[in-house]
Amino acid sequence: MEKLYGGMEGGGTKFVCAVGTRPDEIIDETRFLTTTPDETLDQAIAFFKKHELEAIGLAPFGPLDLDPASPAFGSISATPKPGWSNTDILGRFRRAFDVPMAFDLDVNMAAFGEFSWVPENQGLESLVYFTIGTGIGAGVIINGKIVHGLTHPEAGHMRLPHDRLRDPFPGRCPFHGDCFEGLANGPAIGDRWGQRGDILPDEHPAWDLEAEYIAQALANVIFLLSPQRIVLGGGVMERMQLFPRIRTRVKELLNSYIHSPVFQGGLDGYIVPPGLGKRSAILGAMAMAKHLTES
Amino acid sequence: MEKLYGGMEGGGTKFVCAVGTRPDEIIDETRFLTTTPDETLDQAIAFFKKHELEAIGLAPFGPLDLDPASPAFGSISATPKPGWSNTDILGRFRRAFDVPMAFDLDVNMAAFGEFSWVPENQGLESLVYFTIGTGIGAGVIINGKIVHGLTHPEAGHMRLPHDRLRDPFPGRCPFHGDCFEGLANGPAIGDRWGQRGDILPDEHPAWDLEAEYIAQALANVIFLLSPQRIVLGGGVMERMQLFPRIRTRVKELLNSYIHSPVFQGGLDGYIVPPGLGKRSAILGAMAMAKHLTES
Repeated sequence: MEKLYGGMEGGGTKFVCAVGTRPDEIIDETRFLTTTPDETLDQAIAFFKKHELEAIGLAPFGPLDLDPASPAFGSISATPKPGWSNTDILGRFRRAFDVPMAFDLDVNMAAFGEFSWVPENQGLESLVYFTIGTGIGAGVIINGKIVHGLTHPEAGHMRLPHDRLRDPFPGRCPFHGDCFEGLANGPAIGDRWGQRGDILPDEHPAWDLEAEYIAQALANVIFLLSPQRIVLGGGVMERMQLFPRIRTRVKELLNSYIHSPVFQGGLDGYIVPPGLGKRSAILGAMAMAKHLTES
Repeated sequence: MEKLYGGMEGGGTKFVCAVGTRPDEIIDETRFLTTTPDETLDQAIAFFKKHELEAIGLAPFGPLDLDPASPAFGSISATPKPGWSNTDILGRFRRAFDVPMAFDLDVNMAAFGEFSWVPENQGLESLVYFTIGTGIGAGVIINGKIVHGLTHPEAGHMRLPHDRLRDPFPGRCPFHGDCFEGLANGPAIGDRWGQRGDILPDEHPAWDLEAEYIAQALANVIFLLSPQRIVLGGGVMERMQLFPRIRTRVKELLNSYIHSPVFQGGLDGYIVPPGLGKRSAILGAMAMAKHLTES
């Protein structure tokens, strides 16, 4: 019998738990609302208890303590979600299961899922996954490993050129005003144009501006990290017309400076939507569980 | 007898070659002008031939072909330096020596030198080294390895917020105008203020503006990569008064968003001058040679 791995994506609204051998062979899956930590985590643990698992990957909502040297490693840190601050997720799972466990941010697991499971990404050593939705974040894979560093990337808070003549909107990040997230997350589109982004038509100028900020951020990522592929997920990126505009603008911004065959074409294979659709994080958590038992 | 390693830093003006066991035990060293490829590389090879070496690290000026799958791997690519375009550096050394050889950009070798040899950096897994001088570039170490990705980082070309009311200077990068290098390299200081940066007094407003751009770039690096330390070298950074200004401004830009004990202090140990002074690259080339024989 093939080995089984568990993955949990724990969001602020709902949890998804899955068990399987690989993305196209999920043998059991459940989703339920995020209520109290006790109730929600007990539900997840009860689901995984039904199976004989080799390893489990946990991708709860952040902020998380990811420093293995910290006494709070494996916990959710201070969060506005009532009752969830300082919840020791990994500790509860460790008391319930005697198998290897991975614990990381949802966006890091999503990056690892895209890196590990998507056929086009086989053979790559680096990849950056952005989620662009209510928040903006990135998971970075370098030499096949998720980048943590001092804490973990917070790529949504990079600062970008902001032409206030073209776009007088001041940005809405409570910490940084007009950082990438402050200018380009979903709520910024709504605030700037006075209507929800998801009902703006494709030809609305909102989308050229959105593509501009995303392209500026990606150009900076390319200059700093030279990743082999960039995956763009999240609610805002469901507007597929953004992709060609972003690719065109990234090429203009690089201005032929980077010499790689990749940049001679139209970037269709370089800046891509998620190969796993909305399941990058849950499948990434499973991929990381599998990876734990193989490395 | 201890094992001997060779390092070569090949600049556009001069070459430095050194042989030793470690940074404080260099047993032979030479420097000579960069003339023709034949004459210059023959001189370097003749110097190393005097010794029984375990391995050699080569850090010539770029642009370099660093793709091991490319037929031109190990060469200098198209360069304005007369006679040097398409010079196969690694190939010449391989024909002359039958020992392991490392080949990388000077700024990458400098990052590795700081990472490997400086006592304060022992135990780190990530570090970013910036050179800020006539050009601006960065070497990035993640999980103990130099980041290459698709080609290699070109961090000098990141775009930053540019407040044209405060600084109407349009930038001088021939490719990107007001990118980081275009706004903040040594020649940009000269062009903006009409006098060479190295003769401007410490209290000149040039330095606050310079610190602003460097801090913006470092904040973006921290948001994207979360490195454990940032080292700033190069001619511009010899103006030591820049360091406290950069540290203060980086803290303001992060605005308490990143939760790490590192950012609770004054960043004196986080944003630092090179521990190896001007010898980061030559000692990094030696460190990489040593690393080759150990891994």
